[in-house]
Amino acid sequence: MRVRLEKVKGTRDLLPEEMAKRRWVFERIREVFERYNFHEVLTPTFEYTELFKLRSGEEVVEQLYAFDDKGGRNLSLRPDMTSSVARLYVNGFQNAPKPVKWYYMANMFRYEEPQSGRYREFWQAGVELLGSDKVEADAEVIALFVESYLATGLEDFTVNIGDRVLLDEFAKMLGVEDDVGLMRLIDKKDKMSREDFAGALREFGLDDDGVEKVLALVEIKGLPEEVLPKAEGLFTGEKAKEEIKRLYELVDLLDAYGVSKWIRIDLGIARGFDYYTSIVFEAIAPNDLGIGSIGGGGRYDNLISVFGGKPTPATGFAIGIERLIPILEWKGLIPEPKLRPDVYVVPIGKDVELRRAAVEITSALRAVGVKTDCELTGRKLRKALDYAGKLGVPYVVLVGKKDLAEGKVTVRDMESGEQRTVEKARVAEAVVGLLEG
Amino acid sequence: MRVRLEKVKGTRDLLPEEMAKRRWVFERIREVFERYNFHEVLTPTFEYTELFKLRSGEEVVEQLYAFDDKGGRNLSLRPDMTSSVARLYVNGFQNAPKPVKWYYMANMFRYEEPQSGRYREFWQAGVELLGSDKVEADAEVIALFVESYLATGLEDFTVNIGDRVLLDEFAKMLGVEDDVGLMRLIDKKDKMSREDFAGALREFGLDDDGVEKVLALVEIKGLPEEVLPKAEGLFTGEKAKEEIKRLYELVDLLDAYGVSKWIRIDLGIARGFDYYTSIVFEAIAPNDLGIGSIGGGGRYDNLISVFGGKPTPATGFAIGIERLIPILEWKGLIPEPKLRPDVYVVPIGKDVELRRAAVEITSALRAVGVKTDCELTGRKLRKALDYAGKLGVPYVVLVGKKDLAEGKVTVRDMESGEQRTVEKARVAEAVVGLLEG
Repeated sequence: MRVRLEKVKGTRDLLPEEMAKRRWVFERIREVFERYNFHEVLTPTFEYTELFKLRSGEEVVEQLYAFDDKGGRNLSLRPDMTSSVARLYVNGFQNAPKPVKWYYMANMFRYEEPQSGRYREFWQAGVELLGSDKVEADAEVIALFVESYLATGLEDFTVNIGDRVLLDEFAKMLGVEDDVGLMRLIDKKDKMSREDFAGALREFGLDDDGVEKVLALVEIKGLPEEVLPKAEGLFTGEKAKEEIKRLYELVDLLDAYGVSKWIRIDLGIARGFDYYTSIVFEAIAPNDLGIGSIGGGGRYDNLISVFGGKPTPATGFAIGIERLIPILEWKGLIPEPKLRPDVYVVPIGKDVELRRAAVEITSALRAVGVKTDCELTGRKLRKALDYAGKLGVPYVVLVGKKDLAEGKVTVRDMESGEQRTVEKARVAEAVVGLLEG
Repeated sequence: MRVRLEKVKGTRDLLPEEMAKRRWVFERIREVFERYNFHEVLTPTFEYTELFKLRSGEEVVEQLYAFDDKGGRNLSLRPDMTSSVARLYVNGFQNAPKPVKWYYMANMFRYEEPQSGRYREFWQAGVELLGSDKVEADAEVIALFVESYLATGLEDFTVNIGDRVLLDEFAKMLGVEDDVGLMRLIDKKDKMSREDFAGALREFGLDDDGVEKVLALVEIKGLPEEVLPKAEGLFTGEKAKEEIKRLYELVDLLDAYGVSKWIRIDLGIARGFDYYTSIVFEAIAPNDLGIGSIGGGGRYDNLISVFGGKPTPATGFAIGIERLIPILEWKGLIPEPKLRPDVYVVPIGKDVELRRAAVEITSALRAVGVKTDCELTGRKLRKALDYAGKLGVPYVVLVGKKDLAEGKVTVRDMESGEQRTVEKARVAEAVVGLLEG
């Protein structure tokens, strides 16, 4: 049998350095999530396919990893976390005190063409806040979104806020029936020239006046204090006025959170999913890597009832880890992880006493928290020192017969080449002193 | 459409308390893995099904979650990590300095009947050490195995060590051709009475003498110093003598590691997988929960060449997190996580100044690391205090109109009911003082 030894297209192996950096990023974000008193949950990797179909846009359903298990159940790997969290909420938390504040750090799966920052298995760090329709909830979630990026050291980014109510009202003003279709089109505007976008709008059935209005709408972006007054001019209905008032309140609360600097309004943001109902947002960080949005979210007040629960307002976001990390790397914001050990212990010879003593020393060093390697392959002194050099280990402990007969061992500073003899029973102490000094 | 709102059979939702405890366990184990200078890797959740078929025993192949992706590839969710790690090693690390020391903390998938401590999706924390055939490598891995459990606070457990060379030699002495079949039978011995086991051995084709010998073999268990001399008496061939010498050395090095207390020899351990080649081991912790092995591993010197790599000796283990955690819980070893916030900030009224001030205070508290909730649902004072009581929050900050007009807010100690007025600009300082005091 010929074995398929490659990994599957669109997936990756995460090697030690990448994993250490990724852990650093997750931990920075986790600290902020916890400070905001969100609590971690984890749902199963697969669910009934129907669950995902119920919520997700067409595009996501096409991209599902679906399969039948041996019991004949049709299952899918999760394409995102919100459906699973909604199921969990409906199943057991409808009567819990509100709001329910959950976060997750987990992997998702979509069958799509691999490209920069896009993989078939990818990770997200996200939150869901269930049980408040107040703008305070939107503000808390967006402030947390900003602070999560800041915690990773990223400062050059903006969070662009759009609004689905306004887009809906806008579609109504234009007399467009397929408002979802219009939003999908608007979502793609940044990938087209202005001419192509106008052309697509005409093909969609808009007349010249309508096209002009849409082009005016998608131009409504920038600092809130400049943009919101323009929006007031564009909309007439009561519902739109109310929603613009909500945006003003949101912006005011975000100012109280101290995150205004990163906030922009962009009424041309629709965000793919059909289930958003009001404020939506996404984060963009300028980069040369071809990476677009590094995360996004919004309010979804209907989803819980679509899932059979009591109507429950909700909002949340997800940060795309495979989008964020390359940008952090490109900016040099992730500290280089220390993968080498601090000490490498080498018995000089095959005698059982030497090997035993090497293990005792290794064990004593680890017991005081020193990251230690013990020679495990039977290397002789010369090769062991070559190996230590290659690894960049700062100190090597040499366990030789003569030394050991006197209850001693030799500690070698690999940088200076300096060696000193130390009592075997005090090696840990001596090495800690060297590492700290 | 009727929605399947349940989770899939054999899977679980991990709620905040469970997740916090689980994180605690992973972090304790991770610290030890890192101290031993193992490095974390993560491979994709799915691989070509062939990869898993090549390595795993029949039982595991039957339990694979296999499916075709949209590109027609036959894939499977990983049933364990060793195959993926072996693929990774063969693909890119054959020329890396040896040994390669990797660890992982990841989820696996097997379609089997759910039972105590067994789920269809489950987590393992494990290591693989590639590139050393020396007994030092076995000793390091087994010492790490012991220390990992100790790091979680567990002390009442044993690591039972068996040996596949000895079992193979034994099968040869008995003239048994189907040595794998015999090992599977021996693996199940603890689930049968002595009579049933003897009966099964007879059915397997052993005569009375053979049955007696197997019964004698599986009785060879206990403290190394008592058991190894017995083993010397049972075996005659040179290969077995060499292997027993290896076990003596292993036991000596484990003594040097200071972990002898937890070590037992049990020559009746085979461990399911076919690919083990020498020393194998598993951990057992006495419990009333019906949970058997809480982890295991062993040496697998042939796997890398089966995967098309240069012959590379290897050893490793996996700790079953869903087996370990219930035992730690049952023993009360996992600290209760703190899920409540330290402070809850409540505006008394709907005025925008009050709501804004509440956000400012929340933000100031979080900025100094205090876990803080801000009232997000528009609760009035009375309901907010009820909610605070339910959550067990120690301090509530009340933002009232009169106080605020003087630049102040009220901090209420929820246990004593005591209230004090504090300058708004110094709330964070005051609360930190209270929390620390």
